[in-house]
Amino acid sequence: MPEHTATSRLRLSGLCFLLQILNILLFAVFARYSPESSPSHCPPQLDCSQRNQDSGFQQPRFWDVHIQVLLSFGLLVAFLGRYGPGSAAISILIVAFAIQWAVLLQGFFYFFLNGKIYVGAQSMVSADFCTAAVLISTGAVLGRVNPVQMLLLALLEVTVCTLNEYILLSLMGVRDSGRSLTVHTFGAYFGLMVSRVLYQPHKDKRKREEQQDMGHQSDVFAVVGTIYLWIFWPSFTSATTVLDNAENWAALNTYFSLVASTIATFILSPVLYEESTPRMVQIQDATLAGMAVMGMAGEMLVTPFGALIAGFLAGLISPLGFRFFTPMLRSRLKIQDTCGVHNIHGLPGILGALLGTLLTLLATADTYSDRLELVFPLMAQGSRTITDQALIQLSALPLTLLLAALGGCLTGAVLKTKVLRSPPDAQYLENTVLWEVAEERCDPRAGGKELGISTLV
Amino acid sequence: MPEHTATSRLRLSGLCFLLQILNILLFAVFARYSPESSPSHCPPQLDCSQRNQDSGFQQPRFWDVHIQVLLSFGLLVAFLGRYGPGSAAISILIVAFAIQWAVLLQGFFYFFLNGKIYVGAQSMVSADFCTAAVLISTGAVLGRVNPVQMLLLALLEVTVCTLNEYILLSLMGVRDSGRSLTVHTFGAYFGLMVSRVLYQPHKDKRKREEQQDMGHQSDVFAVVGTIYLWIFWPSFTSATTVLDNAENWAALNTYFSLVASTIATFILSPVLYEESTPRMVQIQDATLAGMAVMGMAGEMLVTPFGALIAGFLAGLISPLGFRFFTPMLRSRLKIQDTCGVHNIHGLPGILGALLGTLLTLLATADTYSDRLELVFPLMAQGSRTITDQALIQLSALPLTLLLAALGGCLTGAVLKTKVLRSPPDAQYLENTVLWEVAEERCDPRAGGKELGISTLV
Amino acid sequence: MPEHTATSRLRLSGLCFLLQILNILLFAVFARYSPESSPSHCPPQLDCSQRNQDSGFQQPRFWDVHIQVLLSFGLLVAFLGRYGPGSAAISILIVAFAIQWAVLLQGFFYFFLNGKIYVGAQSMVSADFCTAAVLISTGAVLGRVNPVQMLLLALLEVTVCTLNEYILLSLMGVRDSGRSLTVHTFGAYFGLMVSRVLYQPHKDKRKREEQQDMGHQSDVFAVVGTIYLWIFWPSFTSATTVLDNAENWAALNTYFSLVASTIATFILSPVLYEESTPRMVQIQDATLAGMAVMGMAGEMLVTPFGALIAGFLAGLISPLGFRFFTPMLRSRLKIQDTCGVHNIHGLPGILGALLGTLLTLLATADTYSDRLELVFPLMAQGSRTITDQALIQLSALPLTLLLAALGGCLTGAVLKTKVLRSPPDAQYLENTVLWEVAEERCDPRAGGKELGISTLV
Repeated sequence: MPEHTATSRLRLSGLCFLLQILNILLFAVFARYSPESSPSHCPPQLDCSQRNQDSGFQQPRFWDVHIQVLLSFGLLVAFLGRYGPGSAAISILIVAFAIQWAVLLQGFFYFFLNGKIYVGAQSMVSADFCTAAVLISTGAVLGRVNPVQMLLLALLEVTVCTLNEYILLSLMGVRDSGRSLTVHTFGAYFGLMVSRVLYQPHKDKRKREEQQDMGHQSDVFAVVGTIYLWIFWPSFTSATTVLDNAENWAALNTYFSLVASTIATFILSPVLYEESTPRMVQIQDATLAGMAVMGMAGEMLVTPFGALIAGFLAGLISPLGFRFFTPMLRSRLKIQDTCGVHNIHGLPGILGALLGTLLTLLATADTYSDRLELVFPLMAQGSRTITDQALIQLSALPLTLLLAALGGCLTGAVLKTKVLRSPPDAQYLENTVLWEVAEERCDPRAGGKELGISTLV
Repeated sequence: MPEHTATSRLRLSGLCFLLQILNILLFAVFARYSPESSPSHCPPQLDCSQRNQDSGFQQPRFWDVHIQVLLSFGLLVAFLGRYGPGSAAISILIVAFAIQWAVLLQGFFYFFLNGKIYVGAQSMVSADFCTAAVLISTGAVLGRVNPVQMLLLALLEVTVCTLNEYILLSLMGVRDSGRSLTVHTFGAYFGLMVSRVLYQPHKDKRKREEQQDMGHQSDVFAVVGTIYLWIFWPSFTSATTVLDNAENWAALNTYFSLVASTIATFILSPVLYEESTPRMVQIQDATLAGMAVMGMAGEMLVTPFGALIAGFLAGLISPLGFRFFTPMLRSRLKIQDTCGVHNIHGLPGILGALLGTLLTLLATADTYSDRLELVFPLMAQGSRTITDQALIQLSALPLTLLLAALGGCLTGAVLKTKVLRSPPDAQYLENTVLWEVAEERCDPRAGGKELGISTLV
Repeated sequence: MPEHTATSRLRLSGLCFLLQILNILLFAVFARYSPESSPSHCPPQLDCSQRNQDSGFQQPRFWDVHIQVLLSFGLLVAFLGRYGPGSAAISILIVAFAIQWAVLLQGFFYFFLNGKIYVGAQSMVSADFCTAAVLISTGAVLGRVNPVQMLLLALLEVTVCTLNEYILLSLMGVRDSGRSLTVHTFGAYFGLMVSRVLYQPHKDKRKREEQQDMGHQSDVFAVVGTIYLWIFWPSFTSATTVLDNAENWAALNTYFSLVASTIATFILSPVLYEESTPRMVQIQDATLAGMAVMGMAGEMLVTPFGALIAGFLAGLISPLGFRFFTPMLRSRLKIQDTCGVHNIHGLPGILGALLGTLLTLLATADTYSDRLELVFPLMAQGSRTITDQALIQLSALPLTLLLAALGGCLTGAVLKTKVLRSPPDAQYLENTVLWEVAEERCDPRAGGKELGISTLV
């Protein structure tokens, strides 16, 4: 065992080294800070200006630079509620790598000019959305892949995710400011497909118990994560809709949605389980579901009760999914879903996309007035009819699912190669994450047995 | 026992369902987003515009929408230092319900026009203040009421709190930007009256021990809560005084106040208890007390040393209250105060109101110059003399106490009805919160005995 | 033992009382709120205006008041990852005192006019930087000094730190916006010198074990601290460079630096230790190191890959320092470094200062264009050549080291006086912090043995 561990350790170390050197080289060759801070400085050929006009994308202000890290870290904190602090180290590694990689790749798609890509506040926000999708996907496979596989998953998923985002937002002109589709739905189904390809029947039972354990142990993380999400997410969802009117509504809608979704969990939980109040992890799931459903529709809803109803439905879907869908996924489709991303991000994301399509159909100049050109600039300019826009919004859903599934299959196939599973003892290595965690916690050198915050008996 | 639990579970579930459907219906019928984002769009008949002029209330900016959730969640985090994560689920339920209800009720008072109420960033900030008062009240009764009773308490308290706020701020023109009176004092005495009505002598002893335990166990929450309060509260206190001059001073005063209050705890704690340094929960209490005392006076103080002295006094009052007042309240007045809201919010709030009255008496055009019309617009316009304003500020205190006491009595009487205590085993149900928590933590299904973060032995 | 404890308790209480009364008196005599909120109101004689022009220091906006508390508390949270919640109370006491004292002292240096010092948002930000330096120094000696000694350390260090900052930033015109030198390097070497003077050989072994323990126990704090630093620090580093262009780059550079530094830890950790993934505390150290190295260079770097390389180097230096430097410091130089501030703040700070000097040499009007007058106002005005500025930047490093060493020696000598070590049982008192912590945790009154979050067996 020590030998394998040593190999696996140095393998991760080496891969990190290679990837970081690669990143530094690519940044040195291609990346420069964008010269402008005000839109007027933006060179006319640069994609950014084109993007500004087409999609109502504003130049992010300082605060947006600031919160660029919030989204992915919000998810990170949220996930700790399920995995415990043991997985935090790997998650932070994923974030650190994925952000650099996403800045590069998105730079090539959006900010490429004269052989250079221009990095600015906006790049960081976009990169962070991508990183969030990766974190969602890792939620589906955590505990069954080793850190090396995780890094490769991040490498591949950022690529496909950027491609999907480019097709949807730039080529098709889909409105998805809070990323119901490009982050929540994409991330969930990508992860589920990877999980499907990596499926190993004999691991099924044990993992479920471990997950159960983790959930109970880390109530503290769930509390912190939930509060964190309540505070920061509403403003994040509206980060890319900076104009005054739209901004407020997106934040308020998200807020109403998560309030209703939280109460829905309190309604269903006692019926589905034998507990009078839901556990904190369930409340956190409801919060996430209430946010995923508002991703696309957040800026389109013009009445608060719409957000209440949507959040309420998302809050009902999520626990029902855990109770009935997750076991079915596992037994019928052989998809293990470590932390239920299908219920928390997948289903609410699809619901949000459908809701967005419906709202697009209802969007008239009457109900929107000034906001129409913010939310649907192409419709306001008259270059697109309501029906066209609604069809495009709707067609974005199957396209995202397709890309996520294809990308997930491919990634799963790559991760399944023997080299990555390590020759001598494949089974050991695949559990590396949890094993390492357990070992560290019970480290005799530490003079005691501890787990999470630990104990002194 | 399982039967009672099942009944109680479904009762909570059903009540949540009814209240949420009611909220959705009321929102559907009455609530619309306010059309304006800039004050110029505000219809002239709308109360909001009147309020703007009268009380120097500015249109909140985006960031204010953002932090609307901070206040109540700050309290939530703070309370976890006393209750542990077990009560977090119920607290979040209370917040989720109270915010919707407060938006509705305050809408009827302030933003009602042509049969519709207009919801905007300002509504959310106001609703959040109300929710904070509810959370303070629950601090007095926690551990002795079940979740169903909690929800009804929130329902009734939001109503009375909105009424009190309307009378004070809109009808009487009292200045209370950081809500010393309408949140801290009102919440504390409302909760204490409910606690008095629900008093049950034989429960007294045991509860005290449990509380003691909780306090020790959740040092982590106390640390996180304290830091959270230090970071976010100073800016929140000044959230409603947005103009540049006043804003800075309110935040700085609050900050100086909590610094002095923290040191006061370090002075008194070793004298009162046999510990060389105070426990984190005590430091957190000092922080809260230092903030409560600056609620009204924060924007009125024109010198930093005033804030230092006020905070110092509040920091001395709070531990003295815990040592001498709380036992007296319990033995003489038969008022149990689970987490000492009387010392943390009640007494400092009253001190803050008295200080505010004193400062109003000293407010001359000389000392205030430009700020006078911000802080005391009616005095700046000449429609009120200094003495009038000071008398009004002073009279707001007994009025708040009266409304809090009446509302608390009424609420306590409602909560005491047999239906709510559940027929067969009243005693069991009333401890539901703590029992559930204990059960969940020692859940054999979880494969271990855990509490809070848990242990692996 | 009880007698000594009582004496020590009352000594701390009395010292707190004296210092707070002193602070209130000094504030009452000298401190007033600065009348202006916009620079135009600033009296021309006031240092602040001179400072504005000379160093590109802008009037902080409201949000800067808000985050003034973030820096020191970020450090506080970060340190809890090493010390556990037990030391939090003392740390908060230090912060509460140091901020008042720093506002006073820095007021005398920068904002003194007509016998009054003018306090504003800017004072709070400056005071907070000073407090951060004190927290860094306490990191070197924690566990070996009692609270009374801590308070005196804060008293003396704030004085020397303010002097150093005044000489560097105001007299010499050194650019150090993120405080690589005046906070990180100064704080680390000041603390190390104090630690050297207080060295007691027979305590060495035991402490190391305790520290080891602490690190393992408080993974939760390390996770929370790391996330906190990722979110807030990049914007803090750029807090004093408010103009749009410079601001963005400083934040982005800091962010890239900490990303690369995190990955560097993942590369080195498996090689140096027998763990496949680094512990959370190590990742947190890497985060801090990546920030310290960007303190001076953050606003000077004009390409993202420069930040990646600098962060990468800092991330490599920090674990190497822990592995090879810290033991050498202890055995050869007899300097105990409780939480490795030399590796986390000292070395990266020096690296940052050297990098800043190098970048100053490369700063031409070509590469900087408009930003030159922001970053190097004196060079833009033509009153200083590139070489002069670079020499001054470089000479600031030995000067800071000298002042830190002298101040540390002096402080150590004061702390070593017999009065402070308490006559009868010096050894007992010096361990007061950890002893108290241990006692509280295992307090039989609490009905159980708990540590950190605690356990229920």
